[in-house]
Amino acid sequence: MTGIDDLPVRDELRGKSPYGAPQLDVPVRLNTNENPYPLPEALVERITERVREAARDLNRYPDRDAVELRTRLAEYLTDTSGHTVGVENVWAANGSNEVIQQLLQTFGGPGRTAIGFEPSYSMHGLIARGTGTGWISGPRHEDFTIDVPAAEKAIAEHRPDVVFITTPNNPTGNAVPAETVLALYEAAQTARPSMVVVDEAYIEFSHGASLLPLLDGRPNLVVSRTMSKAFGAAGLRLGYFAAHPAVVDAVQLVRLPYHLSAVTQATALAALEHTDTLLKYVEQLKAERDRLVAELRAIGYEVTESDANFVQFGRFADSHATWREILDRGVLVRDNGVPGWLRVTAGTPEENDAFLDAVREVKKEQST
Amino acid sequence: MTGIDDLPVRDELRGKSPYGAPQLDVPVRLNTNENPYPLPEALVERITERVREAARDLNRYPDRDAVELRTRLAEYLTDTSGHTVGVENVWAANGSNEVIQQLLQTFGGPGRTAIGFEPSYSMHGLIARGTGTGWISGPRHEDFTIDVPAAEKAIAEHRPDVVFITTPNNPTGNAVPAETVLALYEAAQTARPSMVVVDEAYIEFSHGASLLPLLDGRPNLVVSRTMSKAFGAAGLRLGYFAAHPAVVDAVQLVRLPYHLSAVTQATALAALEHTDTLLKYVEQLKAERDRLVAELRAIGYEVTESDANFVQFGRFADSHATWREILDRGVLVRDNGVPGWLRVTAGTPEENDAFLDAVREVKKEQST
Repeated sequence: MTGIDDLPVRDELRGKSPYGAPQLDVPVRLNTNENPYPLPEALVERITERVREAARDLNRYPDRDAVELRTRLAEYLTDTSGHTVGVENVWAANGSNEVIQQLLQTFGGPGRTAIGFEPSYSMHGLIARGTGTGWISGPRHEDFTIDVPAAEKAIAEHRPDVVFITTPNNPTGNAVPAETVLALYEAAQTARPSMVVVDEAYIEFSHGASLLPLLDGRPNLVVSRTMSKAFGAAGLRLGYFAAHPAVVDAVQLVRLPYHLSAVTQATALAALEHTDTLLKYVEQLKAERDRLVAELRAIGYEVTESDANFVQFGRFADSHATWREILDRGVLVRDNGVPGWLRVTAGTPEENDAFLDAVREVKKEQST
Repeated sequence: MTGIDDLPVRDELRGKSPYGAPQLDVPVRLNTNENPYPLPEALVERITERVREAARDLNRYPDRDAVELRTRLAEYLTDTSGHTVGVENVWAANGSNEVIQQLLQTFGGPGRTAIGFEPSYSMHGLIARGTGTGWISGPRHEDFTIDVPAAEKAIAEHRPDVVFITTPNNPTGNAVPAETVLALYEAAQTARPSMVVVDEAYIEFSHGASLLPLLDGRPNLVVSRTMSKAFGAAGLRLGYFAAHPAVVDAVQLVRLPYHLSAVTQATALAALEHTDTLLKYVEQLKAERDRLVAELRAIGYEVTESDANFVQFGRFADSHATWREILDRGVLVRDNGVPGWLRVTAGTPEENDAFLDAVREVKKEQST
């Protein structure tokens, strides 16, 4: 039987497995940082209205430059950050993964390198591999904050073309201070100059503010976002970034023409009309996230400070065995491969109660 | 003012422009091979129903492996080709461009090369560039058929990792005989072995049959398809391919996780329920395409044999000047950069009449 290794695949793909969390059928799924709240019915109806309109013109290619969508995204960023962003500053694609892929095709690629400070969002390194960009794993402190002097040293030594900074960081949950981003931006410009991509996928859940104002006067800075989390639209696959207009022009040299379908654009536009409602769910999730942190600590777990819609907790002698023990109680959390730690997504109050009951039991058993 | 060249973009992107036909506001647009028939209202309603259902679960990630969609696509291929295709043979992505990108990331990439026989679909070469794959421009005869001995020689000499064969070819319109594909497949296997991608984006408009039966016993062969043309769904961005199951496994090593949104999957599934109606439009378009070929010849133009929903006609001393003269009469056709030739998409009977009137006038003026 012919298998992958019998095909002329690239050498670096041999023996690899596809990325992705196990999709298991479990009562409580708190493993992929989804928003647990379905879209309100009024928004579902608005989506169907806008999609009906788009479907009547579906024989035509979509707006290649997604101008209306980028305009509305720019307004959302301006309204929520206080930093003025225009359509010329915004680019959108099929999920933040495609945004990152386009940035790496433009500024990374063969003969170039990118650095991330790990553990962090593992797709940064995987998309680097997929685009032929060399990947450098930068350091963090034991408490998962970025070790600035060590990071500056790594940048000076490796002179990467692209620097990824995830804030709030995934899977650890902690936010990165603006001063750290500024220090690494300076180090990166001195070394090469290079592009610095601040991945703010979870920023709406943060206690602190977005780093969008740092874009002023920094053409090599990019802030990436997604509608998967705060907008409760993981199924929509809509990622975007804000940056200097020249960066938006540059990614258009590598974007696949008409990459964003008319139904995706229509659905995203409908969701953006309901921003206020969706951001109220974010407030509920922040409260639940804070409750998870407090209760996990009360149970006796170590918890990393969280500014996201998930919480990293530990420590476990064997985190994968603990992941399995929690799963046996009907709750799916995520083993991101960080030794000693697991990650749980903030769900509905009921889901979080089920999770807390499960880990209370596990704690009791592990203590006896 | 900071521009693209002030950013640390890859050297090969400097001075380049984004790919894409000019999007002009003109009464008759026959430039991008769109299907001129809007989806029937019953299908528009079915799309809104399926999207409403998907929107209620939009806070969750979509089916990562798009199993239902791939199953229905496999059934469509089986029903229309007589060659049995299963879900394990089919892969889908955001437009055939993303399909091609994933194939090149898997089987091409840095240090590897791909060949196409030009003029052909120019995105093959552009996506090669975007994935770091070296691009080899293979030869054609003067009449735009593939020069088999010259192509075999080019394959033996360059030993490409990926071979593209577009049938019916775009922008010329002519189909490639099965014997040619078989000869080039053999040449490619002898040289390296390499993957052969048969791009059948326009096959539903062909006088001849799909080459899907050639997949039997050829694990290094891929047949790619799209819903943009025959399904009248350019706005949907749904491309797919059929191949040995190992090829489907292999592209999953490079696909971005959850690349296909829930609304895209829902919309494509709705369209596949209406296949019979949509294929009736295809029959109308084939008749109109044949009429365009006959009338253009009657007017005195040279026309390349067409198995697609478009027609290549000429010859012109200055094809871009003629493009402009036709545009001045309210009809937008495509100048694909093939010296002496232009391409017109088969539109509705009224659109085609407007086009034929315009080129009759142009012919008269150019003859005087």
